[in-house]
Order: sequence, then C-alpha cells, then structure tokens
Amino acid sequence: MTPSNFESLERTFHEPKRLAILSALAAGTEGLSFQDLKSDCRLTDGNLNRHLKVLQESAIISQKKTIRNERISTQIRLTARGRKAFIQYLESLEAVLKEAQGAIDTSTASKSTLPLGRKARA
Amino acid sequence: MTPSNFESLERTFHEPKRLAILSALAAGTEGLSFQDLKSDCRLTDGNLNRHLKVLQESAIISQKKTIRNERISTQIRLTARGRKAFIQYLESLEAVLKEAQGAIDTSTASKSTLPLGRKARA
Repeated sequence: MTPSNFESLERTFHEPKRLAILSALAAGTEGLSFQDLKSDCRLTDGNLNRHLKVLQESAIISQKKTIRNERISTQIRLTARGRKAFIQYLESLEAVLKEAQGAIDTSTASKSTLPLGRKARA
Repeated sequence: MTPSNFESLERTFHEPKRLAILSALAAGTEGLSFQDLKSDCRLTDGNLNRHLKVLQESAIISQKKTIRNERISTQIRLTARGRKAFIQYLESLEAVLKEAQGAIDTSTASKSTLPLGRKARA
C-alpha cells in the first residue's frame, strides 16, 4: 500500500466534470469556444463558468474573447502550465488505477472460485 | 468526446482517500482492522470513521466488532456488492483515463516539436 499515490492526485482535476473539460481542451492546440465546450461536456452556462473560474485562477486555462460573425465568442485554451499539470495528474491517476486493479487481481487469484474467465479448461 | 464516460464515475469511490480505503480493503478477502486501515491510508480516527460511515450506508463495506487480546477490535470488509461496484468504478476510471491520454497523445502528435522521445531518428 502506497498512500502517496492517492495523495498525489491533484484535486483541481479530479472532479469528473473538470476531467471532461480538461480532456476536451487537451485534444487540440487551438482551444474550444465556450459553446462547443459546453456542448461537449454537457454542462449548463453556470456550471461551465464555475469550473472555468477555478481553472483560470490556477492558470490551467486561459480565456480570450474574439469577434466571430459579428458576435462575441469566448475561446478557451489549456495553458502550457495547465497541459503539463494535467499530464502529471494523468500519470498519478494511472498509478492509482494500477494499484487498485492489482489489489482486485490479487484477491481474485487467491479465491477458490475464480470468476472472469479464469476457470480451468474443461 | 464521450461525456458518458466521465458521468459514469461513481462519486462515492472517486474521492482520493476513499480510493485508498477501497484499494486497501480490496487486496484481501479477510478485511482489515480499523487500526491497520487507518495506518495504511494515513488517516485520523475521525477521518476514517467519516469515510466508513458513508461507505457503510451504501452497503459498500461491513464492520464487525471482535475481541482480540481482550480488547475490542473492529474488522472492516468490502461486501460482495461493494467489490462488484468498485470493479465497475475502476473500469469507468480506466475508460476516462484512456480517453484523456488519447486526447493528450493526439494533440502532441500534431505539434511540430515532439517531446517525450518521439523525435525523428538522427
């Protein structure tokens, strides 16, 4: 058991909706418009704004207003710092996942009745 | 983008300390004493009790008091239902992780400067 793996999970990113936002933004280098991000992550205006505020305060994202088709559009990007931190978070998450899966596998293998296709061949 | 992956993350398990508790309990079939679990997960009595209360209310764990060396000891186990739900959570987490890693990989591959050992051979 290595609790440090679990403790290293960056709290800002761990919230499922923020994970969705970060993943959507990480996919491109151009960022996404507020409307596209809202639609991709199935969020309301208020919810997305609330998450973006937290992410901007931590300098994870940047927001830029532009004029598109005579309307103001907000473009949201992952900052270089944000991308780096998100990659580190994903590495921690992978370590935590592997540890938990390892725990499940160990206890499953030690049982006399083995589920999930591990039965002896007939 | 498939928001359903992110939405499927079971909130009860997602909290990092609960993830640590569940992973510790999942490793064996005999469960752990309160003291061992507390020590494994680096929690205070109050914190561990608070998490166990939530997990017991959801029938994820069971607690049983036993006498050991003339002292009352509490043994904590993952229930069958808890184990199944935890495995499902880990499957969702793996899907979310892969999606996020895929997003990072895609954007990295599309950049002109490729970090992380992806440079063209000299």
